[in-house]
Amino acid sequence: MGSFHVGGRHVQLSGRSSFERVLSEGGEPVKINLNGTYVVEQMYVQYFHPEQRNGKGPLVLWHGGGMTGVVWESTPDGRDGWLNFFIRQGWDVYVCDAVERGRSGFAPYPDIWPEKPITQTVDDVYSRFRIGNHASSYNADRSLRTSYENSRFPLEAFDQLSKQMVPRWAHTNEAMIKAFQALLERLGPASILCHSQSGPLALRLAGKHSALVKALVAVEPAGIPCFQSQGYRTPTLMVMGDNMESDERWAILKKKIGEFANSHDGVDVFSLPEVGIFGNSHLLMVDNNNIDIALRIDAWLRAHV
Amino acid sequence: MGSFHVGGRHVQLSGRSSFERVLSEGGEPVKINLNGTYVVEQMYVQYFHPEQRNGKGPLVLWHGGGMTGVVWESTPDGRDGWLNFFIRQGWDVYVCDAVERGRSGFAPYPDIWPEKPITQTVDDVYSRFRIGNHASSYNADRSLRTSYENSRFPLEAFDQLSKQMVPRWAHTNEAMIKAFQALLERLGPASILCHSQSGPLALRLAGKHSALVKALVAVEPAGIPCFQSQGYRTPTLMVMGDNMESDERWAILKKKIGEFANSHDGVDVFSLPEVGIFGNSHLLMVDNNNIDIALRIDAWLRAHV
Repeated sequence: MGSFHVGGRHVQLSGRSSFERVLSEGGEPVKINLNGTYVVEQMYVQYFHPEQRNGKGPLVLWHGGGMTGVVWESTPDGRDGWLNFFIRQGWDVYVCDAVERGRSGFAPYPDIWPEKPITQTVDDVYSRFRIGNHASSYNADRSLRTSYENSRFPLEAFDQLSKQMVPRWAHTNEAMIKAFQALLERLGPASILCHSQSGPLALRLAGKHSALVKALVAVEPAGIPCFQSQGYRTPTLMVMGDNMESDERWAILKKKIGEFANSHDGVDVFSLPEVGIFGNSHLLMVDNNNIDIALRIDAWLRAHV
Repeated sequence: MGSFHVGGRHVQLSGRSSFERVLSEGGEPVKINLNGTYVVEQMYVQYFHPEQRNGKGPLVLWHGGGMTGVVWESTPDGRDGWLNFFIRQGWDVYVCDAVERGRSGFAPYPDIWPEKPITQTVDDVYSRFRIGNHASSYNADRSLRTSYENSRFPLEAFDQLSKQMVPRWAHTNEAMIKAFQALLERLGPASILCHSQSGPLALRLAGKHSALVKALVAVEPAGIPCFQSQGYRTPTLMVMGDNMESDERWAILKKKIGEFANSHDGVDVFSLPEVGIFGNSHLLMVDNNNIDIALRIDAWLRAHV
């Protein structure tokens, strides 16, 4: 196992005055000169190569908005996440923190990125991820929270999940896709398992650089990108949880996902409630049946890679 | 292996107007309501338990300023870092991203933290870490950079190292130490291996909660904290690289470290040039003799835990 960063670009700042600051307790003052070179928009990647490889090549894990690669690690209630699962299944797994998230770092605001980051409230996370069943489901008092009755999310561990959330920007999609592409170019053809925000970015990459993507599993992609998709030929699986219809935004997305699948050969849809699996939130990889779902994804991947 | 977050506190924001934003390519507009609850100042921890444990208990790795736990992973030139080394030596290793760094997330500025983050320039990193031999050693053109003649830093991979750097704040020491303490309380007595900025925080913790710290290895601590240290009795090793005298700030720190060791029983100093090991930068764990140094630290730890 190991890690590295890919992509990134150099930016120069000049004309700022320097100042002194003690940065460490009991330390000496440090002269801070903000003028000079910065590296921004690089992406952090941690990889694990199992002893018993399945020969199917690399599997990259791309998380959703406001999150980092942590979502693939232990579930909030301490069970094995999909990272451990896919390593055990013999994949060479690469977990990414998307550009500006987690260990990828972010560019100084407002010097380089003019936009402010957006940080989701805990309240918002609770309903946006279809754990709570309406916008005001969250309550600081755990006993007063409401959720979908059939919820498979580990409700008692929601507070732990909320600690995973990090600020995110709204203007960084192009930088993200550039870094994702840099990773695929470094690895060679790979399978992608992506979630939510990274779904449309992965679809666009697969559409444009089909040679780099062996297969794509998009777990609840948060959008279907506008792209020239006539030639789209990447084996693709769209995975969807439960209770999408009761959420205005997800109801529309579910329809769009269905339309995309219907108009492209080789795009399969795996909607869990339609095969009798109920109660999954937007965070399928964290729900109490996460390993069952992972087994089905693994089987699909092995059949298509 | 797995991961979790410790610590953190809830903060409420109110009175802000909401707005709509499309956050995912091809997605539906999302209503952003900044009012509500935030979790801030939590700390991310990733752990690895080897099959063959050495029975010495947990070893926590705390990185320095402007960095994340990545510094313990692969070196910038792709060799094994100290994380892999200490796992192989049978330690239960816990790698942390300090509060506000990497996967720990950060609090929205200026809503919760009034201060702006500070991002070090690449130029500054190059000299501050005693790779370059003076403040203007860095040059975008690799062939024009100057470094200490005996440098053991993998100079050809400096650009990769610079991608590891992340913004940091100057007012978060108390929040960091609180989260470090929460981790030790969760794990029980542990050994600490810390670097630079986390050095003084670990020293203060060991001074105040000696029962929680079995042994402490401080690699180039960036300060000696002011604390009631008469009763300090944690077995402690201070490790220092080369060329400290030629850097005004490090020359002072080296003196302070020596004074602390002289006035406390059980504090050992391991200054590499004094045993004939020359050329180590501030990033000993990354230098080309990193495994040799780790072996010596491992031997010291085994003798003192």
